[in-house]
Amino acid sequence: MADTTQAQRIDGRALAAAVREDLTHRIEVMVNAGRAPRLDAVIVQGNPAGEVYAQRQARTCEAIGLTYALHTLPADADQQLVIDTIDALNADEACTGIMVHLPLPDGVCMQAVQARIAVHKDVEGVNPANIGGVIYGQRTLVPCTAAAAMHLIESTGIELAGTRAVVVGASGIVGKPVAVLLMQAQATVTSTNIHTEDLVGHCAAADIIVAAAGVPGLIGPEHVKPGAVVIDVGINRVTCPDSGEQRTVGDVDADAVASIAGHLSPVPGGVGPVTVAMLLRNTVEAAQRA
Amino acid sequence: MADTTQAQRIDGRALAAAVREDLTHRIEVMVNAGRAPRLDAVIVQGNPAGEVYAQRQARTCEAIGLTYALHTLPADADQQLVIDTIDALNADEACTGIMVHLPLPDGVCMQAVQARIAVHKDVEGVNPANIGGVIYGQRTLVPCTAAAAMHLIESTGIELAGTRAVVVGASGIVGKPVAVLLMQAQATVTSTNIHTEDLVGHCAAADIIVAAAGVPGLIGPEHVKPGAVVIDVGINRVTCPDSGEQRTVGDVDADAVASIAGHLSPVPGGVGPVTVAMLLRNTVEAAQRA
Repeated sequence: MADTTQAQRIDGRALAAAVREDLTHRIEVMVNAGRAPRLDAVIVQGNPAGEVYAQRQARTCEAIGLTYALHTLPADADQQLVIDTIDALNADEACTGIMVHLPLPDGVCMQAVQARIAVHKDVEGVNPANIGGVIYGQRTLVPCTAAAAMHLIESTGIELAGTRAVVVGASGIVGKPVAVLLMQAQATVTSTNIHTEDLVGHCAAADIIVAAAGVPGLIGPEHVKPGAVVIDVGINRVTCPDSGEQRTVGDVDADAVASIAGHLSPVPGGVGPVTVAMLLRNTVEAAQRA
Repeated sequence: MADTTQAQRIDGRALAAAVREDLTHRIEVMVNAGRAPRLDAVIVQGNPAGEVYAQRQARTCEAIGLTYALHTLPADADQQLVIDTIDALNADEACTGIMVHLPLPDGVCMQAVQARIAVHKDVEGVNPANIGGVIYGQRTLVPCTAAAAMHLIESTGIELAGTRAVVVGASGIVGKPVAVLLMQAQATVTSTNIHTEDLVGHCAAADIIVAAAGVPGLIGPEHVKPGAVVIDVGINRVTCPDSGEQRTVGDVDADAVASIAGHLSPVPGGVGPVTVAMLLRNTVEAAQRA
């Protein structure tokens, strides 16, 4: 008899919409109290992808009543100018959140710029002090993609303490921060990477898999314990060999895993929209703590 | 036939002595080049344990040619005074490393003080930006106890990439930072805690066990794979029920584990002396990068 059970699809778009709705109310209260949050974004000219993202971000902020100020620096901006801009925003009391659109031009050190953002205004969670603070049990502004992975996991209602979680991939942007957040939530966490032997064995014992390796279809049915929560953080552009068409796929072979996992966060429509929502949430929380 | 094989004892005192000897040479070169490193320590009066430690530290620094300046604040020092002292040292070019003796008096927030120490002078690695930077692959000043655990592991010559490591205990001071450092070294790392089910199963599959739970004798022979590297980071004061005598024991039942492990770092004489040496090493490295 064919097993027709299907994993519950974690709807990232719906979760993001719920976060935005909650934020809309919180922002309204803050505005009425004369404490309007304001997100300031810095972009250097000559970054077309960043400009598209900034335009979309402006609309998203407008929709929830969040003031958004875009600071466009000339294409020949050097590191000092970017740093000076950050310093001015750090000192500006009306600015409660700061983000920097990547990539920055050659000659501007991304890490130096990110570390310059005041810890309490660092709504992308890219200043190392923020993820470092998580290690010390402090309440900080958590890196957005990692926060999104946690939000997707928590949406399933799973109890994290004592749960066995495997993080596939140990990047600085996703894998390591997610592992730290899962540790903080008292899960038993295994961080794996390209050198890991028996990835299948590790994954097949896990209650939660966070796939963040950047390898299309890496996680197949043999990796998944029946009923496990599978969060796909891979965002891979692949070209269909037949049609030549490009599409976005995750690290999980979703079709094959769907009949085994208990909950599955898809790509697209999973971690992506929630990551954007986490930036907005960080912005509101930064302002509330200010 | 009795198995008389014994784990190779990792000699923390000898490793620490080797680090100090190396540092003595490096400091001499720096002093001759007119770039003497200087460790500034801050202590608030009424901290007898800290005063004993500071006296010992002064002698240790003198022995390797490192200038040590102790700044003693009055017993009624408030947070502002401690912060102002840190700020002055941050701004003082002759000071290349800063540490703060704990505990601080009531009303002085340890985390605020530690986060105030300039990242590049934070030789104890207690500013969250330093362990956070490890997550992003930056070369930082690593928390001393975690750095000592890594130094003990590396002293065995084990290849870390692909190695299976289990960290027992997920404290902010030791467990989580060690897990991050092992991730950075590309090990497959499992972080366990009090909620972990089947700790024996996790440990028995590990090539490396770092025991940092603070539970005397937690790790017994059933936890250890033959030939594994076992690093005992537990420092527990226990009272002998018969004699009433106090002694320091680790988290590992060393007598029982010694015939199974390949390498065993004992307590006392393991991580303790190396932790002190890592503070000195951080101080010299901070000065060299300054």
